[in-house]
Amino acid sequence: MQYPSKLIEDAVNEISHLPGIGKKTALRLVIHLLKQEKETTLHLSDALVKLRTEVKYCKTCHNISDNETCEICTSHRRDHSVICVVENLPDLMAIENTAQYHGSYHVLGGIISPIDGIGPDDLKIDSLINRVKNKEDKIKEIILALSSTMEGDTTSFYLTKKLKNFDLQVSTIARGIPVGGELEYADEITLGRSILSRITYLQE
Amino acid sequence: MQYPSKLIEDAVNEISHLPGIGKKTALRLVIHLLKQEKETTLHLSDALVKLRTEVKYCKTCHNISDNETCEICTSHRRDHSVICVVENLPDLMAIENTAQYHGSYHVLGGIISPIDGIGPDDLKIDSLINRVKNKEDKIKEIILALSSTMEGDTTSFYLTKKLKNFDLQVSTIARGIPVGGELEYADEITLGRSILSRITYLQE
Repeated sequence: MQYPSKLIEDAVNEISHLPGIGKKTALRLVIHLLKQEKETTLHLSDALVKLRTEVKYCKTCHNISDNETCEICTSHRRDHSVICVVENLPDLMAIENTAQYHGSYHVLGGIISPIDGIGPDDLKIDSLINRVKNKEDKIKEIILALSSTMEGDTTSFYLTKKLKNFDLQVSTIARGIPVGGELEYADEITLGRSILSRITYLQE
Repeated sequence: MQYPSKLIEDAVNEISHLPGIGKKTALRLVIHLLKQEKETTLHLSDALVKLRTEVKYCKTCHNISDNETCEICTSHRRDHSVICVVENLPDLMAIENTAQYHGSYHVLGGIISPIDGIGPDDLKIDSLINRVKNKEDKIKEIILALSSTMEGDTTSFYLTKKLKNFDLQVSTIARGIPVGGELEYADEITLGRSILSRITYLQE
């Protein structure tokens, strides 16, 4: 596509490097920014630079944090004997938003995916093992909260093997019919798994 | 939503001000930028700042330009006696990409839309009239290439009235069945218009 200005072309190219944004959307965003006050663009650009240059990662759980150790790891209200292992920040935030979990986290920074060239060494697995070895805060349980995909399952399997020799419980989040989901529309694998891992009602 | 870091929150808020991007997409983009090299974000931010602070508009046609007058307005290969009136830059670029038009342009910067509070005075209509009045480059034809919507038709109607007393031809781009479109799926109004403005084949 021919752009009438080098500035437009540069901006469109840079924006279209973002995932899920093509040249047409990028151009739409550029036009939008040009229509807005100059400050809108400057604030946006400032926030991006600050984000990328000043962001810190918690040295314990690798969650993104404004300090050396994140708020969850320093909180006294949290149960630090349970670690929930997640792939990335959005997953952590999704679990936090349920308000059902009160332990600590461990952010792997990805999952094992040979196709994308991501192996166990690229993830924060060693530091998870170190946290388990550390006698100071005795870990009782590790919850694997990874996606129910080939890659997620591979990572879960790898972690389970790595954690086998420690005196702790390893669990994974339940797979089954989503709440509000209709049986008719569930796929066979999900339905099959939800029958196998059925939950027994407590009886008096 | 609760963010683990003020930097993330600021960046997500700024990005989600862009049209068509919500908080979830913004967070995905933020995570993407954090995974990339620092330079990716710095280049993006730099391109945005440069775009917004250094961009110029052609003083003749209001197209975006790197110079005082845009390349189209200064080109000797262009027919400057024809002006194609468009709403904005993407429309101009779309017409340029057809390679079927060799005249000059006039970018209105919007269309008349009372709902959005945009009246004729907010658009570059006066400068279009001035171009027509200017005897130096005698304008022979004005092509209205506006969207086929209520607002586009209103603007076309307004411009036609404004241009009535000048010695020039005013035309609008053809409305009809899109090339490759099937009659069966065309709406009645389009089909009706395409019958009314049918094109007679030249006969020997």
